[in-house]
Amino acid sequence: MSDLSINISRLLSRLAALGARGELPEARGKGVKRLALTPQDKEGRDLVTGWMRELGLRVSIDAIGNVVAVLPGENPGPAVMMGSHIDTVATGGRYDGCLGVLAALEVLETVKESGLKLKKNLACAFFTNEEGARFAPDMMGSLVYVGDLALDQALATTGIDGSRVGDDLAAIGYAGDAPVGRPDACAYLELHVEQGPVLEAAGADIGVVEAVQGIYWNELTFEGTSNHAGCTPMALRKDPGQAAFETACAVRRAADEAGGAQLGTVGRMVLHPNLVNVIAAKAAMTVDLRNTDAEGLRRTFEQVMDAAGEYAKRHGCTLTRRVLADFAPQPFDPALVSLVESTARELGQKTMRLPSGAGHDAQILARVCPAAMIFVPSVGGFSHNVEEFTRPEHVEAGANVLLRMALRLAGA
Amino acid sequence: MSDLSINISRLLSRLAALGARGELPEARGKGVKRLALTPQDKEGRDLVTGWMRELGLRVSIDAIGNVVAVLPGENPGPAVMMGSHIDTVATGGRYDGCLGVLAALEVLETVKESGLKLKKNLACAFFTNEEGARFAPDMMGSLVYVGDLALDQALATTGIDGSRVGDDLAAIGYAGDAPVGRPDACAYLELHVEQGPVLEAAGADIGVVEAVQGIYWNELTFEGTSNHAGCTPMALRKDPGQAAFETACAVRRAADEAGGAQLGTVGRMVLHPNLVNVIAAKAAMTVDLRNTDAEGLRRTFEQVMDAAGEYAKRHGCTLTRRVLADFAPQPFDPALVSLVESTARELGQKTMRLPSGAGHDAQILARVCPAAMIFVPSVGGFSHNVEEFTRPEHVEAGANVLLRMALRLAGA
Repeated sequence: MSDLSINISRLLSRLAALGARGELPEARGKGVKRLALTPQDKEGRDLVTGWMRELGLRVSIDAIGNVVAVLPGENPGPAVMMGSHIDTVATGGRYDGCLGVLAALEVLETVKESGLKLKKNLACAFFTNEEGARFAPDMMGSLVYVGDLALDQALATTGIDGSRVGDDLAAIGYAGDAPVGRPDACAYLELHVEQGPVLEAAGADIGVVEAVQGIYWNELTFEGTSNHAGCTPMALRKDPGQAAFETACAVRRAADEAGGAQLGTVGRMVLHPNLVNVIAAKAAMTVDLRNTDAEGLRRTFEQVMDAAGEYAKRHGCTLTRRVLADFAPQPFDPALVSLVESTARELGQKTMRLPSGAGHDAQILARVCPAAMIFVPSVGGFSHNVEEFTRPEHVEAGANVLLRMALRLAGA
Repeated sequence: MSDLSINISRLLSRLAALGARGELPEARGKGVKRLALTPQDKEGRDLVTGWMRELGLRVSIDAIGNVVAVLPGENPGPAVMMGSHIDTVATGGRYDGCLGVLAALEVLETVKESGLKLKKNLACAFFTNEEGARFAPDMMGSLVYVGDLALDQALATTGIDGSRVGDDLAAIGYAGDAPVGRPDACAYLELHVEQGPVLEAAGADIGVVEAVQGIYWNELTFEGTSNHAGCTPMALRKDPGQAAFETACAVRRAADEAGGAQLGTVGRMVLHPNLVNVIAAKAAMTVDLRNTDAEGLRRTFEQVMDAAGEYAKRHGCTLTRRVLADFAPQPFDPALVSLVESTARELGQKTMRLPSGAGHDAQILARVCPAAMIFVPSVGGFSHNVEEFTRPEHVEAGANVLLRMALRLAGA
């Protein structure tokens, strides 16, 4: 077992072949647009399920289009499942999601080639619409898989372009007949690119993901009185822009003061009418707060809302709030997390514990079985960006950690 | 002379008739879109010049489309000129500009009807493209009139919809043959709505405008590094949004601290890509600073730029600046300003001295002759807004101040 390792050139050539499906003409060799349930997604799905079938795996597709390929072990029962997703954002790269799926497939192929007999089934899965770039919510396929989103509701979802999930699934031929939630898993492992700069900055090869951060997205809208910028004395203004700017500064301040894993971002700010010489009538801003600690997240949110309320009052504006997303922090299974760490070290890799800032299918699977994630460094921290890149040596290291963990969990 | 007064019902009915040219269907009876040199502007111009000709006035149109109608006095020579503009912004009202032009016409008609013989010529003028909503710069016609913008350059100006001033002037039939800068003026008076809330808040009927504020518009652009909001620790961010938000707060702070007539507004803020979960790559904001005191304006600007530089550095961003507009403060003629005040008081009106926050043709005419402005209150301070409204009693009071000043200056 200890000698077994994945075939890096086969894995890289599959990453390139999948990356060519939906490739962005303006970013050849790297940029991809393969939105969920589009013809490009069908091309990618056909390619991957083709490889699964060539390998002689048992491929099942469920009613929300999740695909699971199983390499049977000696015993029936739940599989050691590995996977991720193959849909992308509108300006995505070749690694996000695809690495986890193709590395899992590489693990199954390596095991099959070796002739090793495992006790448990090994499975490679990809879940539908993880990105949420075309249909909300994100992580739709895994949510349906674990039973936390009703199939009917998911199928009835209308996307940003007006199309329905159920219609598009049927159109691309991936409305499958396997029962939702099957085949089931006794453990779930997901290899993924970090999508941030932490591992690279620390010089680490393998990220040991302790938890997925809780995510709390709110939209705050301040409304005041639009007026001529040259004719309205400062003291008579009801300026929602100023209330929003001050609140945005408070978001940064609250995150900095909280420290630890607390993040706070104002990525979106829209003034109306947004003209140089007009005091805005309305300012809408988003507040993206994340923390692995639910209590800390709540405290930071309260601090931000206290500030927003104070600034609204100071500037004579009304304040309304809309929740855009709310995910509690999801810790991963401590034993599996330790196993990621020890396995990577056995393989001579430098490890670093960190939380995941992005959402992943693994956090949904963690609700029904022990789960863990393995991160590999993103060069420059880029992701959801055509410049997304992970070095081949890190792809190889991550896939070998995945292989060795799978062998251990499946009982080589 | 002291018995003479304008005919308010005639003036109001002309305001309504002109307001019906280019009326906004969604704001009947109040909203107007009559952008400079459009077919709607032609309709408005035809209506007003028609009234001028019916009155038997000498109407001249110059090469940039400025229209001047003269009621001859006993002596030849420069006229006591009154006027404003009749173009509007895209969502304008019936009063901005039109009041000054139609009140001037009303003064000429009142004098003519009275049979009074004045020593000097009286003139009613409207200047092309004061608003600058379709072609930059604003106050184009008056700038050409006083010789501070070359005619050729003005005619070659391309607008927001790609059309050329010269072509559009010819198309609507207002490329006139009168020499630019003629007939000339020995004084210029402009009645205008305040476009702000100051007179109404003070309970004043007539605003005595001491000066037009200096205007300094800059666009500041911060550039940083776009990254995933969930995967980028606070300390590793280069967030141009935060640099812009902090600078926007500094604009307000600097204006408040300067006090006096200093105004500071951030009406426009654009983040790119402007998404909830993405640290912006770029943030562009406008800074609109105004003051009647040039030195104070300069000090406030330096304070804002010091802050912007500091915040750019703090957030690891670059900062670039682009000047969008730069007008020095323009004081009005002290003797004429006092005459506005004393005339209004003679007529029993409550007066208040104030600066003009907006730009006006009067500040351009003030470069070549003594000039002054008379403000009347805007209900709710609304202007550049379909809700723009000035009470009939204030329209009447303002027009009577204009009449009495014209009689005095022209030598009744």
